[in-house]
Amino acid sequence: MNVNRERLREDIEANAEFGAIETDEGRGRTVLTGTETNREAREYLVARLEDAGLDVRTDAVGNVAGRWTPDSADPDAAPVAAGSHLDSVPEGGIFDGPLGVYAALEAVRAMQDAGVEPSRPVEVVSFTEEEGQRFASGLLGSSVAVGERSVEEALALEDGDGTTLESALDAIGFRGEGRLDASEWDAWLELHVEQSERLERADVPVGVVTSITGITHCEAVVRGEADHAGATPMGDRTDALAAASEFVLDVERAANEVVADVSDTAVGTVGSLDVRPNATNVVPGAVEMGVDIRDVDREAMAELVRRARQSLARLERERGVETEFRRPFDLAPTPMSDRVRASARDAGGRAGIETIDLHSGAAHDTMHVAGVTDAGLLFAPSRDGISHNPAEWTDWEDCATATRVLAGALADLAGGE
Amino acid sequence: MNVNRERLREDIEANAEFGAIETDEGRGRTVLTGTETNREAREYLVARLEDAGLDVRTDAVGNVAGRWTPDSADPDAAPVAAGSHLDSVPEGGIFDGPLGVYAALEAVRAMQDAGVEPSRPVEVVSFTEEEGQRFASGLLGSSVAVGERSVEEALALEDGDGTTLESALDAIGFRGEGRLDASEWDAWLELHVEQSERLERADVPVGVVTSITGITHCEAVVRGEADHAGATPMGDRTDALAAASEFVLDVERAANEVVADVSDTAVGTVGSLDVRPNATNVVPGAVEMGVDIRDVDREAMAELVRRARQSLARLERERGVETEFRRPFDLAPTPMSDRVRASARDAGGRAGIETIDLHSGAAHDTMHVAGVTDAGLLFAPSRDGISHNPAEWTDWEDCATATRVLAGALADLAGGE
Repeated sequence: MNVNRERLREDIEANAEFGAIETDEGRGRTVLTGTETNREAREYLVARLEDAGLDVRTDAVGNVAGRWTPDSADPDAAPVAAGSHLDSVPEGGIFDGPLGVYAALEAVRAMQDAGVEPSRPVEVVSFTEEEGQRFASGLLGSSVAVGERSVEEALALEDGDGTTLESALDAIGFRGEGRLDASEWDAWLELHVEQSERLERADVPVGVVTSITGITHCEAVVRGEADHAGATPMGDRTDALAAASEFVLDVERAANEVVADVSDTAVGTVGSLDVRPNATNVVPGAVEMGVDIRDVDREAMAELVRRARQSLARLERERGVETEFRRPFDLAPTPMSDRVRASARDAGGRAGIETIDLHSGAAHDTMHVAGVTDAGLLFAPSRDGISHNPAEWTDWEDCATATRVLAGALADLAGGE
Repeated sequence: MNVNRERLREDIEANAEFGAIETDEGRGRTVLTGTETNREAREYLVARLEDAGLDVRTDAVGNVAGRWTPDSADPDAAPVAAGSHLDSVPEGGIFDGPLGVYAALEAVRAMQDAGVEPSRPVEVVSFTEEEGQRFASGLLGSSVAVGERSVEEALALEDGDGTTLESALDAIGFRGEGRLDASEWDAWLELHVEQSERLERADVPVGVVTSITGITHCEAVVRGEADHAGATPMGDRTDALAAASEFVLDVERAANEVVADVSDTAVGTVGSLDVRPNATNVVPGAVEMGVDIRDVDREAMAELVRRARQSLARLERERGVETEFRRPFDLAPTPMSDRVRASARDAGGRAGIETIDLHSGAAHDTMHVAGVTDAGLLFAPSRDGISHNPAEWTDWEDCATATRVLAGALADLAGGE
């Protein structure tokens, strides 16, 4: 099957114009859910899906799906679906999300061009707000599509200014009807940029994901005593930032040790840290930190959480601070479907394209979909592993190569290969 | 000489009403330079100075001075001056600043009541913007009064909204004429709350400051690489926050060692720390820190700066981060005048009030004044050492006791004792 690299590139480049930002290097865009640039991106997608003869619908939370039901297919058979998302982080790159949406469309067009005759419909999907930059913490549209969150709950979500998802979608004309139901799909496959350097280092163009990492977000608070930095002798201080600094290093050390001893894919990060009152001449009184812990091994994650708690307990004893620890977000690791992985590997083999197995350290809508049907995830190489940044880049040839594997796998899963 | 505790208390409590804030405990106020609450505080002061028969003038940068020239005094003799400031930090306490201003006025009233006949005029002074919360980094009015900053420079200073000091003072009717010239004073004495616990622990009501600490503010920047917290293996990171955490602990350790080995009054604080991009799921790319280093011993300060630089150099080698170090603010320690200190000690002795020598770890307008004339600084106890906070408290009896020492010292310095 022949994928048309230039047609794919034209779509991704056209999409990159919506919300395009000025940058010195690379190409960036800002496309938040329910904004004008999001409307433009959605309208272009709908037009392209229709150009390819797909039957397009938008559900109540703005998920867009275009269905191809060729004569060969039983219109009542459970479809095979593929896609990703069009929204971005602020000043994000042009591949994260759009590659998976337009590769799915290109895969359908490639099947059409090659005269593939699938027995199941094939659906191209764009989920609402994967990045979680405006209304939710991420994976919003797919959470509704798998029934984890109701349409009503989703529509009532508010952004920082109190605008609901409902009124934002209304404003751009993309609040449709009904609910896209991922459990009705026979299988699902998403192509995404890797956001890591493993494919680049291995010089392999396509990764077949074995498992998506589990993710825990923890909030750690350290409370000391805000004091005058000049008038408070060293011995009289309860410096919240000094204590928090030990915590940051404890988390890093614990992650390095778990990588060495338990699971080499584990990561632990203190990504955010806010000091109060945060003035040069005041001994810090309180620090709040956001901790991100991930692995495909549940036990390794649990060990990292234990070590973080132990660190805070030690700081209470040794430094006299008060601490709090919350775990507001916890997702177990998600193994990918063996059947879908095999389809992807075989599609690579048939096309003479090397693939390797790897895990995903990032969250994707596929995490949700895997809860209700057989799901798989493919990676295309990310130059230098950079994403969420205008420097994010995947060579057009790599985009096309990964799309060939996607097309082959979809054809196989849809009973057309 | 008898100080009238209730009269002093009435003035400080009346002043506390201007900019008073709601608090669960304690009494707080927010009085920023050139605001409506600042106008009210200034107008009340002018009225009280005039009630006591003082000749009041306001200079071009809003410094207010009330001069008492009794018949006994040579009107051309260099006056003895005392005072402090009326502005506060946001949600500050009611004693920091106002105690020194109204104690100076009460000292004059006490001399009047006691029939003291000084040979020099006595001046009660309130400097503009000691706290540096709106237009400058602090000690604004005194910087003009000692000639370190010109009137024009000061008036052109802008707040965060682009309002100049000139227009803010115009708006409240307190842009006067000329320049209060501290070099014309024969001597200066400021009473301030200690902002530390040494007097409380020693159970002594008055401290005579030997030296005001030197202060260096440094900015340290650590640059790593912002990366996806899930997709970036531990071994591939250059985490700016982990590196910065080592720096925070290095500064703390260096200060503790300098206290043990070189100078027990040294302090080193990383008071502010800002992370970029500061998201839980992103490996921190850059950290900026504000470092406060103080001591009465110049060499101890230099050692702490050296150790901070060494820490950054080590982090560059060991963690591959890039660092920057700037030192935008540096004030040498300021010894107080022996003559003024002796006057204060003797005044305590005559009144049967115990005093102890101590240093000031906080900056005060007296730092500036000491550069142009003989200057001294007295401390009244601060409950639990708390200041810049509605919990700031000095018992009224302690206020009066310290004011008795101030009055006695001023009488002596003015040739009336």
